[in-house]
Amino acid sequence: MANGTAHTLTQIPPGVQCFFGSEARRRRAIEARVVQSFEGWGYEEIIPPLLDYADVFGGLSSSSYSFVGRDGSLLALRPDFTSLLAKIAAGRLASQPAPLRLYYSGEVLRYEPPKAGRQSELHQMGLELLGGAPGPADAEVLAIAAECLDNLGAKGFVLTLGHVGLFAGLTAGLQLEPAALEALRERVEGKSPAGVRATLESAGVAPAAATPLVRLATLAGDRHVLAEARRAFADWPATLLALDELEVVVQALEQAGLAERLAFDLGEVRGLDYYTGLVFRAYAPGLGFELGSGGRYDQLLARFGRPLPAVGFMLSLDRLALLLERQGASVESQPVPVQVVADVELGARLRRARLERARGQRVRLGDQDQA
Amino acid sequence: MANGTAHTLTQIPPGVQCFFGSEARRRRAIEARVVQSFEGWGYEEIIPPLLDYADVFGGLSSSSYSFVGRDGSLLALRPDFTSLLAKIAAGRLASQPAPLRLYYSGEVLRYEPPKAGRQSELHQMGLELLGGAPGPADAEVLAIAAECLDNLGAKGFVLTLGHVGLFAGLTAGLQLEPAALEALRERVEGKSPAGVRATLESAGVAPAAATPLVRLATLAGDRHVLAEARRAFADWPATLLALDELEVVVQALEQAGLAERLAFDLGEVRGLDYYTGLVFRAYAPGLGFELGSGGRYDQLLARFGRPLPAVGFMLSLDRLALLLERQGASVESQPVPVQVVADVELGARLRRARLERARGQRVRLGDQDQA
Repeated sequence: MANGTAHTLTQIPPGVQCFFGSEARRRRAIEARVVQSFEGWGYEEIIPPLLDYADVFGGLSSSSYSFVGRDGSLLALRPDFTSLLAKIAAGRLASQPAPLRLYYSGEVLRYEPPKAGRQSELHQMGLELLGGAPGPADAEVLAIAAECLDNLGAKGFVLTLGHVGLFAGLTAGLQLEPAALEALRERVEGKSPAGVRATLESAGVAPAAATPLVRLATLAGDRHVLAEARRAFADWPATLLALDELEVVVQALEQAGLAERLAFDLGEVRGLDYYTGLVFRAYAPGLGFELGSGGRYDQLLARFGRPLPAVGFMLSLDRLALLLERQGASVESQPVPVQVVADVELGARLRRARLERARGQRVRLGDQDQA
Repeated sequence: MANGTAHTLTQIPPGVQCFFGSEARRRRAIEARVVQSFEGWGYEEIIPPLLDYADVFGGLSSSSYSFVGRDGSLLALRPDFTSLLAKIAAGRLASQPAPLRLYYSGEVLRYEPPKAGRQSELHQMGLELLGGAPGPADAEVLAIAAECLDNLGAKGFVLTLGHVGLFAGLTAGLQLEPAALEALRERVEGKSPAGVRATLESAGVAPAAATPLVRLATLAGDRHVLAEARRAFADWPATLLALDELEVVVQALEQAGLAERLAFDLGEVRGLDYYTGLVFRAYAPGLGFELGSGGRYDQLLARFGRPLPAVGFMLSLDRLALLLERQGASVESQPVPVQVVADVELGARLRRARLERARGQRVRLGDQDQA
């Protein structure tokens, strides 16, 4: 068998998973707790296909594993769940009235460059609330995300809120080329006021018009950034609508006792193209990247023929496992001690083991005559 | 996006899964019970990669999804778990002393012709006992398979035993060409005495030498077929060794109280190439194909550099779900009733929902102002 690069017989390809023992127990325990929260808020599980037509995921992409099926269709391994669930909601679940509350838990595959050191195989757990008014739905999914992290014992976590309507509102009148808009987005995201100013200057935008975008790149912190944004963007009505939407959600979460879990990053403009409103990421001390993320996507379901507003989020099982390990939290129960069943004769040994099992004991057959 | 065949936006490719609601709950419940049995017998979970180098699975195969990775390696989606676990036992777990007791639960992917109506995506749960003497190890995994099916409430199931050493022993002296041997295997498997006779005749085998193979094709039923085989194959010492191995396992299982669960099909010679000893399949009334299968494979681990005798089995989650549905068994618990939380004001509603959740209640936020 010729392969592009040499590998030993027991080597595992870069970026794929392999867990056992306490790692596997921890993952199963994390999944069980998160699923318990999802079900506890009335969400129903969807077990979607691992592969689907590539066009479901936006067609050929450099970041998904795609291949041609036997019937000539272009297929892809799912790189995320949201598009799949949107398709299922519009197809198999078309007769179920909105709002639909759906959750999933499973692996996604990303085609990563071999040298990047990134995982190709990721386990995501998430939910989607399809239909319903934006404010209540956004607040609900944020409350569920908080419960999941609380139930796992994740210490010091915060949900960092933003809204894609701020960047959209501030750039709407500037008539930037797509490339310039993308460069600008990266500078705002990178929290680089100087970079934002330079990008806008080279795109021919007047310094006065650049000011609010420079400001956007720095509006991160606690609740007072909402008031600051309201003052800074007073002349951009679309941004005020976005801030109103955020305010509704934030007030509800505060009344529900979640004030201390909220943070703000109004310069958070990254993320999947399909977000249309509130976006958020979950962080916790001990991990330099987010545990999960989510947001509102009101246009995606229309692609599949069932226009519905929607909001959802996903948590990374891989990152949760890493965080809890670093924080020293033990979410998994210790395995019940094994009773070694070691009578000399095989039939008697097996009979005793079955009796112990029927009593709920954990057993291991003795190996003394299995040498 | 051009695809080989037209499909609507919400159509799912043939052969892939999509479950929700009670189907998803049933699958989760089945998996939980089987895992409980695996862990109850001292087995540890392995979560292996979903894809690996194609040579792990025997190289390019018409029945696996394979593709070229970014580094030029030929990769394949796992078509089964056994090879992966053998590789992991020889690699990552090389320092753990045998016997190793490992289990897995997850999806495998098979590249099926689109018209075959077969699933490409299957969920398998299984275990492998690596190391240990054959008799005790074979009896152990059979007892565990029986416990799994018992715990699921599968009515009337049987474990049908065979041994690949019978066919091997009876054909060893015949010096058949590989094609003739394969044709013969199919006739024995198809329980066609006339077909066996014709195949051997056209291969130039004398009628007297054909008799035991013709007999092998009909040796199925209860325990007495072992004694019949012993008489019929008295002149083939290798087959007597195989029958001795079966006898040890059967006696142990009988002493352990499993006599009524055993059946025999000595003409069962199908199956993966890697089986070297006892093989078995699980059947139950209401399903025309097996629920799972297993057997001894003493040569596979040597391929990965850690020669160890081994035995294992897998149960098909898909088929178990179908069987239990047909038998009217309800393995899944009914979902706890949802308490609709519907105060008028969003913040108060969310606060109440969180309180109910903290009390362990299942809630759903009212949708009256989400219209």
